[in-house]
Amino acid sequence: MSADSTNIPLAMLVVFGSAKLLAEVFERLKLPGIVGEILAGVLIGPSVLGWIHPTTVLSALADLGVLFLLFQVGLEVRAHELIRVGRLAAQVAILGVIVPFVLGWAIITLAGGARIEAFFVAASMVATSVGITARVLGSKGLLQDVASQIILAAAVIDDVLGLIVLAVVSSLARDRVRILELVATAVLAIGFTIVIARWGTRTVSFVAPHLVSRLQAGDVRFNLAMILLFALSVAAADAGIAAIVGAFLAGMSLADTAGERVRDMTNGVAELLVPFFLAGIGMRLDLTVFYSFNTVALALVIFAAAVASKLIGCGLGAVQLGRKNMLRIGIGMVPRGEVGMVVAQLGMTMGVVTKPIYTVVVFMAVATTLIAPPLLNMAFREE
Amino acid sequence: MSADSTNIPLAMLVVFGSAKLLAEVFERLKLPGIVGEILAGVLIGPSVLGWIHPTTVLSALADLGVLFLLFQVGLEVRAHELIRVGRLAAQVAILGVIVPFVLGWAIITLAGGARIEAFFVAASMVATSVGITARVLGSKGLLQDVASQIILAAAVIDDVLGLIVLAVVSSLARDRVRILELVATAVLAIGFTIVIARWGTRTVSFVAPHLVSRLQAGDVRFNLAMILLFALSVAAADAGIAAIVGAFLAGMSLADTAGERVRDMTNGVAELLVPFFLAGIGMRLDLTVFYSFNTVALALVIFAAAVASKLIGCGLGAVQLGRKNMLRIGIGMVPRGEVGMVVAQLGMTMGVVTKPIYTVVVFMAVATTLIAPPLLNMAFREE
Repeated sequence: MSADSTNIPLAMLVVFGSAKLLAEVFERLKLPGIVGEILAGVLIGPSVLGWIHPTTVLSALADLGVLFLLFQVGLEVRAHELIRVGRLAAQVAILGVIVPFVLGWAIITLAGGARIEAFFVAASMVATSVGITARVLGSKGLLQDVASQIILAAAVIDDVLGLIVLAVVSSLARDRVRILELVATAVLAIGFTIVIARWGTRTVSFVAPHLVSRLQAGDVRFNLAMILLFALSVAAADAGIAAIVGAFLAGMSLADTAGERVRDMTNGVAELLVPFFLAGIGMRLDLTVFYSFNTVALALVIFAAAVASKLIGCGLGAVQLGRKNMLRIGIGMVPRGEVGMVVAQLGMTMGVVTKPIYTVVVFMAVATTLIAPPLLNMAFREE
Repeated sequence: MSADSTNIPLAMLVVFGSAKLLAEVFERLKLPGIVGEILAGVLIGPSVLGWIHPTTVLSALADLGVLFLLFQVGLEVRAHELIRVGRLAAQVAILGVIVPFVLGWAIITLAGGARIEAFFVAASMVATSVGITARVLGSKGLLQDVASQIILAAAVIDDVLGLIVLAVVSSLARDRVRILELVATAVLAIGFTIVIARWGTRTVSFVAPHLVSRLQAGDVRFNLAMILLFALSVAAADAGIAAIVGAFLAGMSLADTAGERVRDMTNGVAELLVPFFLAGIGMRLDLTVFYSFNTVALALVIFAAAVASKLIGCGLGAVQLGRKNMLRIGIGMVPRGEVGMVVAQLGMTMGVVTKPIYTVVVFMAVATTLIAPPLLNMAFREE
């Protein structure tokens, strides 16, 4: 009899049920289930069946889902291993930012776009959305692989770099570049990430046993883990980085201390909410973009450039690891997910990105997300 | 960098963190943690600090939380045990509906309220909100106790009866009573509950092994449990009963088949989301009602009547179980929670319930919810 509870279970049933149904179909066809979950969003979303429309509640569940996804991934990653690959990962991240940016800018400029619009599209091609890759690698039990470690570390660095690029581009759009502000943002973002990555695990290992032994209400370990997750997500967002980086760092800080029960409980939340993130990506794909030939052509070119530029840039960054790992790392960095969309949306809000270009970026983000899992499966298949 | 993800982690941190903090404080004071979580909502809500305001996202999380709470309770309850106490529970439920209704109607009529308004307040005092009681009994490991079994079964029946009362009262407010429609609603609601309670467990035990062995995508058992949960919640709402009754029946249907892992994963979701339900109750309490003496007086009288009428009605219904169990059952049926609020809100939307009377009902709902846990603790304390 509760007010809106009729809608909540129905929305849960439709999104969760269709995502899991298509995941099952895809796995039977030997395709990645994750692609099925994204396509479930396309199918039930406004583009095709129109059963479900993006609402604030659904996007909140999607945001929570991706937080738990990265938290869960963080739980499987040891900080010292990530720091070990830090230098190489930085190389991968930096080249993986420069190449897509230059290529994206060049394409839009050649296509006759305005200078600022070209910068925005370029910026939207920069930041990797690590959620998809992490999910594929995690489900294959490959998070300890050296290529996986570099992908994860590079994605974190890449997010910090992406933030700086976005800050510069936004300043250009406002026709005033505040160097001091930019430097402050960069220092804060980089500092936050380094501090948590370096000392997070040690602090948690030291503080957690004291706290756990002194508290009594409910499932203390799980509750403390949740509070750390939300606190670091908030702190990351406040430091100007994506909240999901905070979630990842929270998970990583707990990797040594979290027991089986905390992991199972976290898995429950992730298993329930991640489909909302995946289906949410599909839901946002506006298929009407394909009604104009020029937009289709541009979308395909930008999509190809987005894939190629990460393959080349990130691959080159990992040249000392040999061709197989170069390919794996390049592919792992391909998905842009929601980050690119947010950049383009910001550009549209500022009035410097047009609607067709926005849809091109959304298409690029969704398509790179869709193509990554099958490519990853191929690249990581044992010979 | 995601659009609104800054707000989601912050809202999670504030609500979840404050609920767990106050739960801890209360447990240390030997008071029920659940009361702390509700008071956390009062504290951070618009009445006191104003850090958090009820939003669609927060109430969606609260709705999900109460679904998982009842699902979790259902998992601990065997259907045949509930059916065993069915006759006695029906007796408890029926008397527990009649006494509060008559008392509520009499008080508002004596206080000079309109006929329809009196009916609405009376209807709002009918339905027990079993979430709080179930949570207290579950945390004390008392769900197998005979009094607990009767409370749970009576609360399910009571919800069905409450629906019929609400349907009658709404018809009266519209000045046309459609007997046929009312009968159809009643038959559907009663039929649905009986069918699931009687054959749900058997069907699941028969179907689940076949499904589980044939599916491959992800955590199959957990996903199937979730789909059953949402499907029965939707079906219950469609049948005109509260979605939470469907959630409870889904859990009960799975009580024999769900393994340790499904339970742990479910606990994770419940542990995360139930605080949103509890704090949400507190958040809705409008303390400004206390600025008028008459409203305070009426609120206290209605509150006292709400407690006394369930104690007397439900107690009398369980007279053959002896005084101790009569008291336990009566107290267990006291909380009205969100159900009463929804009835009053409906009355306000229809223009037959005034604002002060609405706040009186909300106060009654919150206060009965707050008073139940300590009373339950006392009633269930072993001599």
